[in-house]
Amino acid sequence: MSAASSLQSRAAGGTKPDIDAANEALNPMDEDLKVSSSVGALKVTRQVPSRQAMAKMLQERLFYIPSFKIYDGAAETAGLFDYGPPGVKLKNNVLAFWRQHFVLGENMLEVECPSVTPEIVLKASGHVDRFTDLMVKDEKNGNCYRADHLLKDFCTEKLQKDLNIAEEKAKELKHVLALLDDLSAEELGAKIKEYGITAPDTSNPLSDPYPFNLMFQTSIGPSGSSTAYMRPETAQGIFVNFNYLYYYNGNKLPFAAAQIGQAFRNEIAPRQGLLRVREFTLAEIEHFVDPEDKTHPKFNEVAELEFQMFPREEQVSGQSARILRLGEAVAKGIVDNQTLAYFIGRVYLFLTRLGIDEERLRFRQHLPNEMAHYAADCWDAEIETSYGWIECVGIADRSAYDLQAHSVKSNKDLMAHEKFSEPREVEELVISPVVKETGLAFKADGKNVVEALRAMNEKEALEMKADLEAKGEVVFYVCTLGKNVSIKQNMVTISYKKRKEHQRRFTPSVIEPSFGIGRIIYCLFEHSYYTRQSQAGDEQSNNLNVLRFPPLVAPFKCTVFPLVQNKEYEEVAKGISKSLTAAGISHKIDITGTSIGKKYARTDELGAPFAITVDSTTSVTIRERDSKDQVRVNLNEVVVVVKELTAGLKTWADVWRVHRVRRQSRLRNLLNKLCFPC
Amino acid sequence: MSAASSLQSRAAGGTKPDIDAANEALNPMDEDLKVSSSVGALKVTRQVPSRQAMAKMLQERLFYIPSFKIYDGAAETAGLFDYGPPGVKLKNNVLAFWRQHFVLGENMLEVECPSVTPEIVLKASGHVDRFTDLMVKDEKNGNCYRADHLLKDFCTEKLQKDLNIAEEKAKELKHVLALLDDLSAEELGAKIKEYGITAPDTSNPLSDPYPFNLMFQTSIGPSGSSTAYMRPETAQGIFVNFNYLYYYNGNKLPFAAAQIGQAFRNEIAPRQGLLRVREFTLAEIEHFVDPEDKTHPKFNEVAELEFQMFPREEQVSGQSARILRLGEAVAKGIVDNQTLAYFIGRVYLFLTRLGIDEERLRFRQHLPNEMAHYAADCWDAEIETSYGWIECVGIADRSAYDLQAHSVKSNKDLMAHEKFSEPREVEELVISPVVKETGLAFKADGKNVVEALRAMNEKEALEMKADLEAKGEVVFYVCTLGKNVSIKQNMVTISYKKRKEHQRRFTPSVIEPSFGIGRIIYCLFEHSYYTRQSQAGDEQSNNLNVLRFPPLVAPFKCTVFPLVQNKEYEEVAKGISKSLTAAGISHKIDITGTSIGKKYARTDELGAPFAITVDSTTSVTIRERDSKDQVRVNLNEVVVVVKELTAGLKTWADVWRVHRVRRQSRLRNLLNKLCFPC
Repeated sequence: MSAASSLQSRAAGGTKPDIDAANEALNPMDEDLKVSSSVGALKVTRQVPSRQAMAKMLQERLFYIPSFKIYDGAAETAGLFDYGPPGVKLKNNVLAFWRQHFVLGENMLEVECPSVTPEIVLKASGHVDRFTDLMVKDEKNGNCYRADHLLKDFCTEKLQKDLNIAEEKAKELKHVLALLDDLSAEELGAKIKEYGITAPDTSNPLSDPYPFNLMFQTSIGPSGSSTAYMRPETAQGIFVNFNYLYYYNGNKLPFAAAQIGQAFRNEIAPRQGLLRVREFTLAEIEHFVDPEDKTHPKFNEVAELEFQMFPREEQVSGQSARILRLGEAVAKGIVDNQTLAYFIGRVYLFLTRLGIDEERLRFRQHLPNEMAHYAADCWDAEIETSYGWIECVGIADRSAYDLQAHSVKSNKDLMAHEKFSEPREVEELVISPVVKETGLAFKADGKNVVEALRAMNEKEALEMKADLEAKGEVVFYVCTLGKNVSIKQNMVTISYKKRKEHQRRFTPSVIEPSFGIGRIIYCLFEHSYYTRQSQAGDEQSNNLNVLRFPPLVAPFKCTVFPLVQNKEYEEVAKGISKSLTAAGISHKIDITGTSIGKKYARTDELGAPFAITVDSTTSVTIRERDSKDQVRVNLNEVVVVVKELTAGLKTWADVWRVHRVRRQSRLRNLLNKLCFPC
Repeated sequence: MSAASSLQSRAAGGTKPDIDAANEALNPMDEDLKVSSSVGALKVTRQVPSRQAMAKMLQERLFYIPSFKIYDGAAETAGLFDYGPPGVKLKNNVLAFWRQHFVLGENMLEVECPSVTPEIVLKASGHVDRFTDLMVKDEKNGNCYRADHLLKDFCTEKLQKDLNIAEEKAKELKHVLALLDDLSAEELGAKIKEYGITAPDTSNPLSDPYPFNLMFQTSIGPSGSSTAYMRPETAQGIFVNFNYLYYYNGNKLPFAAAQIGQAFRNEIAPRQGLLRVREFTLAEIEHFVDPEDKTHPKFNEVAELEFQMFPREEQVSGQSARILRLGEAVAKGIVDNQTLAYFIGRVYLFLTRLGIDEERLRFRQHLPNEMAHYAADCWDAEIETSYGWIECVGIADRSAYDLQAHSVKSNKDLMAHEKFSEPREVEELVISPVVKETGLAFKADGKNVVEALRAMNEKEALEMKADLEAKGEVVFYVCTLGKNVSIKQNMVTISYKKRKEHQRRFTPSVIEPSFGIGRIIYCLFEHSYYTRQSQAGDEQSNNLNVLRFPPLVAPFKCTVFPLVQNKEYEEVAKGISKSLTAAGISHKIDITGTSIGKKYARTDELGAPFAITVDSTTSVTIRERDSKDQVRVNLNEVVVVVKELTAGLKTWADVWRVHRVRRQSRLRNLLNKLCFPC
């Protein structure tokens, strides 16, 4: 989730009514979840094991680990994580696909700006004043807590543990949970007092809640006087460069700029592992568009897509998300405009191709009170996990807000223009004070009167014109003088005048899809992870871990190993490995003496879709991860087959039809029926 | 250049004697440089125009621009730069090739760690105490300056402008310049006083020089008490994870971990554009190796490489760098070991394939006084630019220093082990005090005596053994008691005993190649940039800018445009563009009404190696950037031809032989002779 959209909420003074909060809070966090997921043509319902088992496996395999672990306890390291070797490969694959899908696919202008950001930039954007969470302090030892977390924990625990709780009280607590994100500092403080909540570590009394700015502060240069922050989002670097990018694009709209980079957020008390961290990778797009024309030339490419959407109306009336066709959503005005909808569609394609289960993906529209006053419309791509629905991509039409904010602060124009094919005649109201007459009438005050007359808006000017025409005189308040003066007809002319305009100048609207890459990766872990019973033939006695990554993002596309330790087979395996490297296929070779069962188990835990077993010097078997089916392939074909499979040119069913030898899977009959119905 | 290698110098208390400093200082910075460079088979000497002209063009084309320019003047933004669209593409290509060449090519474990780093980690590494530059302050207004910069500027100006300078004085100033980096705070301060140097902006007196820590400081969490820094290098994240990575690698050495990421350095006064910035991308490798075996299995792959090396001896004796064969350098002991030399060779291949001119690349060995006491050997890849020789890659054998430092600070073992195929018998000296006898003799002091006996080193114990055998008694100083005691033969047994050892435990050595990506890119700009006279046919009247990027890193592999504005040609151009996208070839299509001359000029300024001009509906011409030669290619072949050219499968000469139509280049005869000598 992008800091931007959070700021947006904060800027608006409203926050998301956490629809799922009460619900989520009542679920034991590690309860097994029943999920339905699709593997190729095969649709099965599996018991997903606990989140803890998954996290344990992911950390053991170095997908990610807490940072600076050897100093654990000696330093504040919460909310900081490392990606280990398979995690980096996965992340690089996700980012490469992001670049391909968005930057290349849409011809975006990718930029890279520093993380260290001078204060003035973030003052203009509103982050210095409003990028805050509410905090309370232990009044005795100074420990800090997030006020809403304490209240949430109190209500949740009460609801879970107090079996004798009165129905009335339970209802109240659930109501508090649902409104949690909407509470002001005062309201939060009042509730904390009312429930007698104290500091969890000491039971000491707590301070009133007060805002804590979430940016990491530092300063540039040796004097210590140039305050700076680590950027909380990448977007501002793009906005301040609008003029350069517009020029680079041949002074043409629409165009989009994109940036992938680190962002920082000094959370008060990070929880939820990879979902709430203090440093994270954002991938953000700022699509600049004429506010008077938000159609999109490629909208028809996504108009027929259908997926779960959760419009405002359904949320307010207590209904669920529903399947909507994107074209219909725009036609009915549910989504504000084509460009916003186009990006929603592209985000849907991006996430599902990564391996996000579309049944656990929804696009939720912001309610009016969560949106900034300037925003035209906002949708979040939310992904369901064991933590509830997680906001992973924000897609917001932020109108002209950001460019105007920087324009005001920097005193530089950040505008686009549209040249008319021929000049247009425009009529505008002109207010012309007659300086001589006001000077005579008001002496030293004349200048202030003239300025005040010129500063009238159209409505005020037209009223004055009417009054002057009707009565010849009007009482006019001059705020710089702090008093009323009497304006006569000879002191000002107010009239419409015609003027030729050669171009239109305007501040473009910005449509911003903002991707929290770490969150998406975490959700991908949850949607990819499952366990299966070890079989008689397997050497592992416990449940076996599998990560169902699609080849597109899998850190390793395949593993290679000899069936038994044997010099000849080892040489064949090494030869295949070399050819795979030459073909640019990421893989892992294993020529240790480990048993074949363990090698398959490792393959599955790393999420490699295929395992190549060398059991002859002329051919090998290739095993597919999820079905465990095997095919026999000649040595000279193996790299081509793997390349075709992982590049999406062929499906496993295609390969199986040609090369199948024997079926080991217990799902054989089921698969047969599904894959080859005739 | 990596912060690590700088720290290394600082840790050793010595610094690089800037061999070129005096020289560089005397060169006007923007003087035209004569450089020789090679384009394919063609070797020409060109006048490279001024650095300012190049920087202007690069900024106009958005390769890079100063960050937050709209707030210029209102905030401290020096040393911060953005990469614009072609710059990001170039950088991504450099990083992709780095990953291919090093991470994939050597099977390295890539990791990603946060930039925000708790103080304890950088305390252990030495950065908190020693990552400093010497600073002086204007005593009246508090403005800060780098002490060595002021002294350097003073000497340089004096040498350049004072035409009547005495020979003696000139010699002295040149000597100061040469020793600049070696001066201590006291020596710098003394020189500043001696020469009467004052604050450049105000002529106020200056403070004594004092160390300023270059890390950006911040704090983690809301309390403000957990000090942290933005990492000055990426290496520490790898060191603290050694145990996990070693385990991931199957507890086997050698292996290398790699990390690409942002690093930060709060420079006192950044100068030299992209070469000295406050935030930059590092790509670092930590290769862990058994200190008793630093051979490298693939050394023979680089042993025959020959290039400019600048060993210690040549530097000290005032000679120049010379061409050395890498195998010879190791055999003669010039480079300490095979693994270090292997990386030197791989770095040479990396840089030259990027487009760095090998005649302006040298590997310079650190002098003993620039190296840390623990380092075995260090070499810098230095690239010659208009700023002099720039350190772009540091390749250091840091021995066991980093792992040991973190082990001590964290109190955790960071070691590798080697299991012996069969247990080895080892003999060790065992000191066994006889507690009963010492107790009887020394009563309450007995415990201290026993401890002191056990704490003896081998030499002390052997001496005691000999004395006891000779005299039966010996005087022994117990430091914890602060007095001598008399040890008799019955109080201690000292003897060699045999023991079986099943493994060897040791701290691995680290060989660290560390790449400053921004510096490499800047050098690549200088080595790629040239201008050529516009010809009669060209529409541009001034000199034309060209960036001679090899296809490997060129941001755009080609441009595509119709010869004239024509609906049919435009459609053909769009079709080619689509096919190029499908083939994954980065390119730029231009269907504006701009003249063909300008389109070629833009192609050259972006460094696109090829331009495709649509001048028919069945075939196109392809123009090569540097020779300006053109070939005619059928429409259905064009993508294949460009793909082969840019993937390095064919050379321009290959294509020209088949498709040549007409020669436009004035280099025709020369080229012919060089490309087709027979």
